[in-house]
Amino acid sequence: MHDPEKLEKLARISRLIRWDCLAMSTEAGSGHPTSSLSATDLMAGLLFGGTFRYDLDNPENPNNDRLIFSKGHASPLFYSLWAAAGVVAEKDIMTFRRFGSPFEGHPTAAFNHTVAATGSLGQGLSIGVGMALNAKYLDKLSYRTYVLLGDSEMAEGSQWESIQIAAWYKLNNLVGVIDLNRLGQRGETMYGWDVQSYVRRIGAFGWQTIEIDGHSYPEILDAYENALHFDKPVMIVAKTIKGKGVSFLEDKNGWHGVALKKDDFQKAIKELGRIDHSVRGDIQPPGDLKAVSIKPQPAAAIAWQADEPVATRNAYGSALARIYPQFPEIVSLDAEVSNSTGAQIFRDSHPERFFEMFIAEQNMVGVAVGLARRGKIPFVSTFAAFFSRAFDQIRMSRYSDANIKFVGSHAGVSIGQDGPSQMGLEDLAMFRAILDSVVLYPCDAVSTDALVREAALHKGIVYIRTTRMATPIVYGAGEPFAVGGSKVLRRSDRDVATVAAAGVTLHEALRAYEELEKQGIHIRVIDLYSVKPLDEATLRDAAHSTRSIITVEDHYPEGGIGEAVRSALASLPVPVYSLAVRKMPKSGAPEELIDYEQISQKAIVSKVKEVMTEKEGKRKCEWA
Amino acid sequence: MHDPEKLEKLARISRLIRWDCLAMSTEAGSGHPTSSLSATDLMAGLLFGGTFRYDLDNPENPNNDRLIFSKGHASPLFYSLWAAAGVVAEKDIMTFRRFGSPFEGHPTAAFNHTVAATGSLGQGLSIGVGMALNAKYLDKLSYRTYVLLGDSEMAEGSQWESIQIAAWYKLNNLVGVIDLNRLGQRGETMYGWDVQSYVRRIGAFGWQTIEIDGHSYPEILDAYENALHFDKPVMIVAKTIKGKGVSFLEDKNGWHGVALKKDDFQKAIKELGRIDHSVRGDIQPPGDLKAVSIKPQPAAAIAWQADEPVATRNAYGSALARIYPQFPEIVSLDAEVSNSTGAQIFRDSHPERFFEMFIAEQNMVGVAVGLARRGKIPFVSTFAAFFSRAFDQIRMSRYSDANIKFVGSHAGVSIGQDGPSQMGLEDLAMFRAILDSVVLYPCDAVSTDALVREAALHKGIVYIRTTRMATPIVYGAGEPFAVGGSKVLRRSDRDVATVAAAGVTLHEALRAYEELEKQGIHIRVIDLYSVKPLDEATLRDAAHSTRSIITVEDHYPEGGIGEAVRSALASLPVPVYSLAVRKMPKSGAPEELIDYEQISQKAIVSKVKEVMTEKEGKRKCEWA
Repeated sequence: MHDPEKLEKLARISRLIRWDCLAMSTEAGSGHPTSSLSATDLMAGLLFGGTFRYDLDNPENPNNDRLIFSKGHASPLFYSLWAAAGVVAEKDIMTFRRFGSPFEGHPTAAFNHTVAATGSLGQGLSIGVGMALNAKYLDKLSYRTYVLLGDSEMAEGSQWESIQIAAWYKLNNLVGVIDLNRLGQRGETMYGWDVQSYVRRIGAFGWQTIEIDGHSYPEILDAYENALHFDKPVMIVAKTIKGKGVSFLEDKNGWHGVALKKDDFQKAIKELGRIDHSVRGDIQPPGDLKAVSIKPQPAAAIAWQADEPVATRNAYGSALARIYPQFPEIVSLDAEVSNSTGAQIFRDSHPERFFEMFIAEQNMVGVAVGLARRGKIPFVSTFAAFFSRAFDQIRMSRYSDANIKFVGSHAGVSIGQDGPSQMGLEDLAMFRAILDSVVLYPCDAVSTDALVREAALHKGIVYIRTTRMATPIVYGAGEPFAVGGSKVLRRSDRDVATVAAAGVTLHEALRAYEELEKQGIHIRVIDLYSVKPLDEATLRDAAHSTRSIITVEDHYPEGGIGEAVRSALASLPVPVYSLAVRKMPKSGAPEELIDYEQISQKAIVSKVKEVMTEKEGKRKCEWA
Repeated sequence: MHDPEKLEKLARISRLIRWDCLAMSTEAGSGHPTSSLSATDLMAGLLFGGTFRYDLDNPENPNNDRLIFSKGHASPLFYSLWAAAGVVAEKDIMTFRRFGSPFEGHPTAAFNHTVAATGSLGQGLSIGVGMALNAKYLDKLSYRTYVLLGDSEMAEGSQWESIQIAAWYKLNNLVGVIDLNRLGQRGETMYGWDVQSYVRRIGAFGWQTIEIDGHSYPEILDAYENALHFDKPVMIVAKTIKGKGVSFLEDKNGWHGVALKKDDFQKAIKELGRIDHSVRGDIQPPGDLKAVSIKPQPAAAIAWQADEPVATRNAYGSALARIYPQFPEIVSLDAEVSNSTGAQIFRDSHPERFFEMFIAEQNMVGVAVGLARRGKIPFVSTFAAFFSRAFDQIRMSRYSDANIKFVGSHAGVSIGQDGPSQMGLEDLAMFRAILDSVVLYPCDAVSTDALVREAALHKGIVYIRTTRMATPIVYGAGEPFAVGGSKVLRRSDRDVATVAAAGVTLHEALRAYEELEKQGIHIRVIDLYSVKPLDEATLRDAAHSTRSIITVEDHYPEGGIGEAVRSALASLPVPVYSLAVRKMPKSGAPEELIDYEQISQKAIVSKVKEVMTEKEGKRKCEWA
């Protein structure tokens, strides 16, 4: 039996929250009030019903329970909850969706109680898995993670990736709540109010399910209480009514993402009854356990033998294992290809810091967001090509201010026989297009090792591109590398052109240098290991001295190194020629493919000569 | 009871196929023999056991059953099957993985019996759903679609998207076969040989499941026969042994993706016993039904009122409805946002050509590949941002030579209040990076209408970017537009700079023109509605005349219009300045955000003036 006074207070709080949801969206002229109203009782019951534990003064308290709105469009509800908790003023949340307000259309890191940015559906549960993994296996804390899910978004495959992984890792500290309001954006969802279709599927994936009426406080409170006592993740499947509380909105199509006009708002609040604007819900304080903390130690030393080629993908794994003592926040995630990406080397040396994510890249990136938001430094690896699977999650991770390192192996046609499906040829374009991202592309084991450490030091999103084949060691031990740097590897005062390359094509450039030198032709060779940010100063200097730049990359031309260099030099009147993958890639030996795509030593030599001839033809400036 | 002679012949064929799988991968020095051996009996039983119907002389026969290897790495098996069917020579498949061979590392369109390119896991079932949808709802043919699935790839969420949609559309002509060999690339899969865990989950999603021993021909043949008789999709869950047939490979870890060395090959084939290289399997011929065929008719006329702003997303829906009679192969797919993308307009006019794909973008794109490979022209729509969810499928669609049109609405910060999660800001980079893609970005209803038609005419991948807000009509009725074209909207012989824009920023450019004109400053304004291919000639001409280009785009700078223009003009000594989204996007009014990101009329005006001042400073050529 529940205390009637408590139930009455919850009802009072819910009325206030519903009022706020309607008011703030009407004030904004947009937003999703009806999707908020369906989940109001579920969320008020969670936060203020006695289960949720949270330090209102410190959203970063490691013992706080976590609440993620996977259905991020219910942001009016999210903000109203925190107003009802008393940590933000009711008048402040009325700035909802205004320019500069922390109360954005969908929750972002701009609001300090947002655990992770959501709004692209089907991502919150993965993030929750990351937070729950952290509690159970890393920090060893007793906080719980709650994720509010929409029924429409259950169609996203990423949800089922999260559900399967949560069961696999026995995350009994993770609770999902499906707001089963039947209606999606443009009509009924696939299963409508068929609660059993959700229960059956989620149960089959190894979760405990609890079915409730999502507007009955006794059922809601019991569900949260019961959810504490299973040895597996729990999904509360709550049948709800979209627009609940306002008769002309309830269970009506056509009201998704529609704010009420002023007069409809007046009609609506009349139905809500008396609103107590002073009521505030009580949230239980969290425990005060201490997270497991590992003291940083100096990293081990490593010495790569210059006479022995090493694949940078393996150098990656070794580097991660080496630097881990210095960065004990590091966690490695891999999508069932750790023996290809090099992550296996780390897994073998630090198995407790490695999590197998199986072939489910979307969830892997979501989990990384969750870990990053709990202070970890996730290094996430798969084939470069397969990060395209998680582009939406990668894009969204930026809006969570997540500190994640992505490591993509098997870049380019140089992987050879496996053919185009396995070739990362768009990965530089993808990661360059993330705001403030860092994109690194080392050519040898020494630079890989150094850049993995730089990546760990850098706060924010970093992408490291590695190569399948073994490549010769170019650098001496101890050579320094920096985000935004480059290396001029060959230069003279007679250089007729600059060849700028990175990764596997850097070696082609060095070979082209040898060949041209035999013919008495000198070129400058730059290792652009930092593709973003680029070392503009060095490039400008090379442009001034050699008056032409040739970029060479094992990547499609669009969004890759060529375009990056062109952007860096856009204001200079110097031509930038790009050698890149322009023909349909296929199976073959790496050398054959590099040659076929004209990104080889031979292609560079011939391009340099072509550029020399062109220059001869126009010694004087066309534009003077 | 099965005819013992038939069973003996199947066993003989399987031995040959196993021999071929081992031989071709050993010859190639790479490949996935063990993943082929586990599925050999399943596939030989399908093709040569009497169920599969196929016209060996004509892979394009519309009545052919379709076979998709979702586990594309079992390509040795795929090619060996066709050799055993007699349509390719055994010696030819020994060119496996060689440069120029149609027998690539993973199946591609280079081999004429490949139904769709695979190799990125978890995509084949979606493609199969597309083919099965086509048979049941469009062509109304009785062919069946079979998809061979790996157990590891069942971890991909995309599989569960396909499974749910197949059940939703009651695709009783679709049969999946899970080759449950327990071992993934680097160890055991999540569920090992726990057949029930698959059966339970797939059953819960509404499929009929059949469990069999994947090496027992009687069970295999019965399963295919039974699969014909259910009113829903059928999944055959077959327990198999990786490396089956060779004792030292069977169920052993460490053999994934490893070809046998010559001496191991000799040991292995000894175990296979006598090989009959002359045996050929019989495949049943298909029926000769005629696909439903709709005669093209002239498209309806449309007239947009120049005095009424229209959102290009709505113009898209109207255009699709208008041109459909002329292109009766058109099919529209949408991810539960048809009222936002404009696809609803088409759905309402041609409901039989519209398929709701719910919020599951990966499967949606896979379905489009299946439809395209059956001669349809799928127009696939969602928010531009959410195509990032399906980047891997989009990338792979190119290797299937698929003729698909992607239409992304809600591009850029100009969507306003919803905030960054809903803003497509990387979509141009993503679609530009697809080999041979066409990227279109119309600014008004008239150009949208024309470009939707151009997209339908073009064979290959086209992306159309649309805008949320209503924009004024710029063009007169009947104005022609072409892939690779542009429009010079303002020009004089006194232009001090060229402003090149597209979509929503084109209107900012036109407003900047007005403002500057008042001040006696003339600029050229170009509508770059074809972002790829770009109209280089017009841009070069503008560069020559105005000696500076300013690009303006509602997109991140990387991989967008600015970089496209820089690439087009890379050999010209003319500066290209880029105005693009460079600050963290947020919620706000569209105008506020356009202004904040400095892609507004105001920003253009000030950039033009800055460029003028710079030019003053260096009248003479720096480089002469």
